[in-house]
Amino acid sequence: MHSINLLDKLQQIAPDEFWQPKVIGDLNNYQIKLVRLQGEFVWHDHADTDELFLCVEGEFEMHYQDHIEAVRTGEMVVVPKGVAHKPVAHGPCSVLLIEPVGVVNTGATQSDLTAPQDVRI
Amino acid sequence: MHSINLLDKLQQIAPDEFWQPKVIGDLNNYQIKLVRLQGEFVWHDHADTDELFLCVEGEFEMHYQDHIEAVRTGEMVVVPKGVAHKPVAHGPCSVLLIEPVGVVNTGATQSDLTAPQDVRI
Repeated sequence: MHSINLLDKLQQIAPDEFWQPKVIGDLNNYQIKLVRLQGEFVWHDHADTDELFLCVEGEFEMHYQDHIEAVRTGEMVVVPKGVAHKPVAHGPCSVLLIEPVGVVNTGATQSDLTAPQDVRI
Repeated sequence: MHSINLLDKLQQIAPDEFWQPKVIGDLNNYQIKLVRLQGEFVWHDHADTDELFLCVEGEFEMHYQDHIEAVRTGEMVVVPKGVAHKPVAHGPCSVLLIEPVGVVNTGATQSDLTAPQDVRI
């Protein structure tokens, strides 16, 4: 019920901790997360769910198999379930994620970038 | 899959059209909406769902029965299901809403401010 300031919350993620989503709130059985991006993620998809990305700071690209979508501060994109995607950030970037509880950041793709669940800030 | 710029989308809502949420995207069985707020809404609750408010421009207050929460640009609040609340904006304010398909803006409260569903921009 309390206000959550996104930029204040981001201060609780180390500036160099990338691709490790942190839960900042709950919406029914969905979680609201913040994550810092930099560099190239892994190709993956989420077979059972759409995934919302809202760019809070900086900018990144959402790579799809057939095109690349730029996502700048104040822009959002919803990746439909089952659609292969790969976020790429050429500089540091901060993103709000909304997705159901239990979504693994790398989907079914095994990767060193696979992050633990339910880390809260 | 395409980027949606929140401030660009807001241009499609008349500057004096308040309390009329417009759908800008879908996340599984949830909708992402934009709405302009000004003035005082009605007390209501949503018996079956939480509701996310993210302030995109300006600021507003979320009134609860026991306190008032200020929500400024870049801040979000999740109103838990069943909790009575009343948004109040002392000036024009723009908000991103996320909630399941079918949520009526005034809950079970009958009001002139009850908005139609599924108006998309």
